Amino acid sequence: MNDDITVPEGWEVVDGKLHRVVELADFSEAFAFMTRVALAAEKADHHPDWSNSWNKVTIDLVSHDADGLTARDAALAETINTLL
Amino acid sequence: MNDDITVPEGWEVVDGKLHRVVELADFSEAFAFMTRVALAAEKADHHPDWSNSWNKVTIDLVSHDADGLTARDAALAETINTLL
Amino acid sequence: MNDDITVPEGWEVVDGKLHRVVELADFSEAFAFMTRVALAAEKADHHPDWSNSWNKVTIDLVSHDADGLTARDAALAETINTLL
Amino acid sequence: MNDDITVPEGWEVVDGKLHRVVELADFSEAFAFMTRVALAAEKADHHPDWSNSWNKVTIDLVSHDADGLTARDAALAETINTLL
Repeated sequence: MNDDITVPEGWEVVDGKLHRVVELADFSEAFAFMTRVALAAEKADHHPDWSNSWNKVTIDLVSHDADGLTARDAALAETINTLL
Repeated sequence: MNDDITVPEGWEVVDGKLHRVVELADFSEAFAFMTRVALAAEKADHHPDWSNSWNKVTIDLVSHDADGLTARDAALAETINTLL
Repeated sequence: MNDDITVPEGWEVVDGKLHRVVELADFSEAFAFMTRVALAAEKADHHPDWSNSWNKVTIDLVSHDADGLTARDAALAETINTLL
Repeated sequence: MNDDITVPEGWEVVDGKLHRVVELADFSEAFAFMTRVALAAEKADHHPDWSNSWNKVTIDLVSHDADGLTARDAALAETINTLL
C-alpha cells in the first residue's frame, strides 16, 4: 500500500512514480549531478530508476518493495531538489 | 547515412541503436561501471543514451548528428566491452 | 580516546591513521574505485583523507572527532577491502 | 625543460607544480567537483596529483614526462577554473 505522500515541488506522479526531468549545461555537469544523486541514494539505501542523455537526466522514484510510492520516495526527491 | 559497421560482441541493434544491458552485483558496482563509461565517453566526445536501475545498466549508442550508427558507436561499444 | 581496534588485513597504522596504498590498472580504474569508496564513505557518514595520482590511491582513515582511531575506521577499512 | 607558462588565476607554483586548494560545501559537492575534474583530465589525457579531505580538494598539476610545468598543466588548470 502506498504512503500518503506530498509530491515535492518540481516533481509529478507519472505511471505511479515520482518523475522529474533535469537539464544541465552539458554532460560533465549532468554526470556530476548524477554522482551527487548516487551518493544520496546509497546513503538512503533507496535508489532511482533514471536515465541520461548528454545534459538531460530523467529520474523516476518508486518503492519497488512496497509496489508504490512511500515516504522514502518523497524524502529522496526532496534531497535531490537540494542538489539543484 | 550510416557507416557500415560491425556490431561488437555482446551488442545488438535495436531501434537503430547499438544496445546492451549489463547486470552488475549491486548499485555501487553499477555506478562505478557507469563512471568508467562516462570517462570513456567524455574522452571520445561521444555519449550514450543510458539508464540505470539498481544493479542494471542499459546502454544505447547512436550518432544523433548522423541520424544513425557510425564508427564512433562501434568504437565506444568496443571500449565499454573492455570495462566489463 | 581511541577504541581498541584490530587493524584490517592490508592496512597499517601510520601517524595514528589506518593507511593503505592501492594500485589499479589506470586512472579510469582508480577513479571508479574511488567512486565506490565515496559511496561507502557517504553511507557510513565517515570519510577518508585520500590522494590519487594516475593509477595510485592512498587512503588514510582516522576519526577526527575522536582524535584517533575508532571502530568506524576499522569498519570503513573492511568495507574498502571488499571493493578490491 | 619547462614551457614558459602563465600561471592561471587562483593557482600558485609550489614545489614546481601548479597548486590550488578548493573548499566546497561538503563531501558530496567536493566529490562531484572531483568527478568533473576527472572527466576533464581523462579527456585531456593529463591527470592531477590531488587529495581530498571531506569538503577540501587539493590539486597539484605537473607534467611528469617533462619533469616540470608545461602548457598542458596551464590548460588543465584553466579548465578546472571553469568548473568552480
